[in-house]
Amino acid sequence: MGKPRPFKTTEARNVRMIERIAILGTGLLGASAGLALRAAGFRGSIVGWNRGAKGARIALAVGAVDSIAADPLQAARESQVALLAMPIYATLDYMEKLAGVLGSDHLVTDVGSTKGQICLAASRLFNRPDRAAFLPGHPMAGKERGGAELADAELFRGTVWLFTDDPDCRRSPHSAELVKAWREWVAAMGSKTIDLDPARHDELVAWVSHLPQLMATALSALLQEEVGGAPELNDVGGRALREMTRLGASPYSMWRDIAYTNTESIQAALHALEQRLAHLRENLRTPGLRDEFELANRFRQSKPPA
Amino acid sequence: MGKPRPFKTTEARNVRMIERIAILGTGLLGASAGLALRAAGFRGSIVGWNRGAKGARIALAVGAVDSIAADPLQAARESQVALLAMPIYATLDYMEKLAGVLGSDHLVTDVGSTKGQICLAASRLFNRPDRAAFLPGHPMAGKERGGAELADAELFRGTVWLFTDDPDCRRSPHSAELVKAWREWVAAMGSKTIDLDPARHDELVAWVSHLPQLMATALSALLQEEVGGAPELNDVGGRALREMTRLGASPYSMWRDIAYTNTESIQAALHALEQRLAHLRENLRTPGLRDEFELANRFRQSKPPA
Repeated sequence: MGKPRPFKTTEARNVRMIERIAILGTGLLGASAGLALRAAGFRGSIVGWNRGAKGARIALAVGAVDSIAADPLQAARESQVALLAMPIYATLDYMEKLAGVLGSDHLVTDVGSTKGQICLAASRLFNRPDRAAFLPGHPMAGKERGGAELADAELFRGTVWLFTDDPDCRRSPHSAELVKAWREWVAAMGSKTIDLDPARHDELVAWVSHLPQLMATALSALLQEEVGGAPELNDVGGRALREMTRLGASPYSMWRDIAYTNTESIQAALHALEQRLAHLRENLRTPGLRDEFELANRFRQSKPPA
Repeated sequence: MGKPRPFKTTEARNVRMIERIAILGTGLLGASAGLALRAAGFRGSIVGWNRGAKGARIALAVGAVDSIAADPLQAARESQVALLAMPIYATLDYMEKLAGVLGSDHLVTDVGSTKGQICLAASRLFNRPDRAAFLPGHPMAGKERGGAELADAELFRGTVWLFTDDPDCRRSPHSAELVKAWREWVAAMGSKTIDLDPARHDELVAWVSHLPQLMATALSALLQEEVGGAPELNDVGGRALREMTRLGASPYSMWRDIAYTNTESIQAALHALEQRLAHLRENLRTPGLRDEFELANRFRQSKPPA
């Protein structure tokens, strides 16, 4: 890479202190982060590693990473920042592995969709003055299908990137600066950052992310059984049906870990929805239906069009 | 209007036989049909009528109709085709009124979302040699909000327009020709037409249209209660949430009639979905979750991206 251009913002020092980033897991989110960092002006090196070699080769081919690492732990050790972009249990595994080989001059961060278990592991393994920092992150971005081939430098633009950091943890001054620098890069990728308590995070995303996903899965599975055998009727549903089932394509491999690590909150949300649907079913011919439409209309009034 | 240009297709006779169309109800669908007919080359006159004067004025202003009628029955009498583009009970009302004033040289057609009651009324009031023809239609197109101000000449392009005609009805030769001509105009507006039995229609749309709508209403109403008071969290859901709740903006005024006229099929679909969600809830940590994702994935494999 060439010499970094001078930064004009007040964050120059923090932003420039990251010279090498290891992206461990170059699927959709990891590879998109690589592209978005480049688009935002990151001039350092980005090394990638992926469990499957094909995903790493694609990430390299699309320019999301500069090189492919053979050993993820070594790649993290040689970088200031390691971004874990893998399913939750894999993230927890690599947190264990990385804690043993990184020190107070490193930052590890992640993109996992549930934060309770990851934050517990973070406080056990990281975030002390003699250890690496861990900043728990969750970009609210994605597509219904994964893979580096769908990577997009604009994936995070206009979206929210949640952090569930422990405000009381005691980090080395250097790793605390790395945390600040990474937050600045996230903002530079186009995301709005919001800080939440991990328990509140997991409860909230059960409502606004996990419930919509499981609704789409349930509707798609139901329709596969009810009308899946009538291909001539596939077109009938139109845009509304395409939208409401788009997430039906989401992979089990990712959602299994989410369901396992946020079971109680998801169960509560699903149960509330079942009751709501039963209420609608019992009120198709009463003013209760109007009340539900009015509540729904009010929810949408605050939203931009999809 | 100028002299009609010569048609080159084999359907020239049928298509040209419609010289005047009355659109009764110039909301989103009615006004879009006016624009789409013009875009498809319709050179005759289009007269509009709307219960609220503002909707009619907007339809006129955007060019969806050439003139506004003071009396919908007279407008229909002076046209070859009357398109009823209003909620279902209003459609049923106007079917009664029009049957008394139209004869075997007229066609009435509609855009209602349920067809059972409309087809019953059609066989009672229309479709005999001495009466007007009635062609029951249902374009699978729309937006989450209605109104002539959202009218769009392209609304029907690439969508399906369902018909639930009675193949055994006996029409006058002239009104039978009008039916053919209207079908050709529907195709010219960009829709693929599919013919269904009315009972099968109502059962099918309960699954692919009414169920997705009521899911979006239920989710939106639930979230209004759960997170509606936390505007800072409004952004968190991202695209998936916006999509899954877009239809939450749909108006009760339209859906009340649908719920009333397709109650049993909608109840069956809602109940099946409740059971499916309960099954998911009970299997968040079992291989049952994988089976549901696999069924859902299979449903989506046959679909284009939303």
